[in-house]
Amino acid sequence: MYVVIVYDVSVERVNKVKKFLRQHLHWVQNSVFEGEVTRAEFERIKATLQQLIDENEDSIVIYKLRSRPFREIIGVEKNPMGDII
Amino acid sequence: MYVVIVYDVSVERVNKVKKFLRQHLHWVQNSVFEGEVTRAEFERIKATLQQLIDENEDSIVIYKLRSRPFREIIGVEKNPMGDII
Repeated sequence: MYVVIVYDVSVERVNKVKKFLRQHLHWVQNSVFEGEVTRAEFERIKATLQQLIDENEDSIVIYKLRSRPFREIIGVEKNPMGDII
Repeated sequence: MYVVIVYDVSVERVNKVKKFLRQHLHWVQNSVFEGEVTRAEFERIKATLQQLIDENEDSIVIYKLRSRPFREIIGVEKNPMGDII
């Protein structure tokens, strides 16, 4: 499955979240990562994110898609993702 | 079509972007909006965003999907979107 993850995490914890997601997904923009994952990987990512954030303060939105979606960028393309094409 | 829009816009311009998107889409999280739009609406939204942002500094990612995707939230559900269900 293909996931798009957008996080809104307090500054004290954001670097840990970013570092973790970088190991598993592709960075798209400031607080957006995406990538193809297996169901098992997805469950591990979710479990780790739950440990890394404060669930009473932070918020992470995960979109679960069947395949890589069509994406358009307006303005600066902060990470052209050339690495995965 | 269903769009998910994530913006990374400088503080001087972010309120205008948020206010505009709020008129057309549903707020999901800090910098994420989504909603069903026609192709014509989508083109208008894109054109207006291009005017509102500084294309050399800001970045907006638009995912174009066929239908509303499955979405999971970890942590605080900042906007349960009860208004559109």
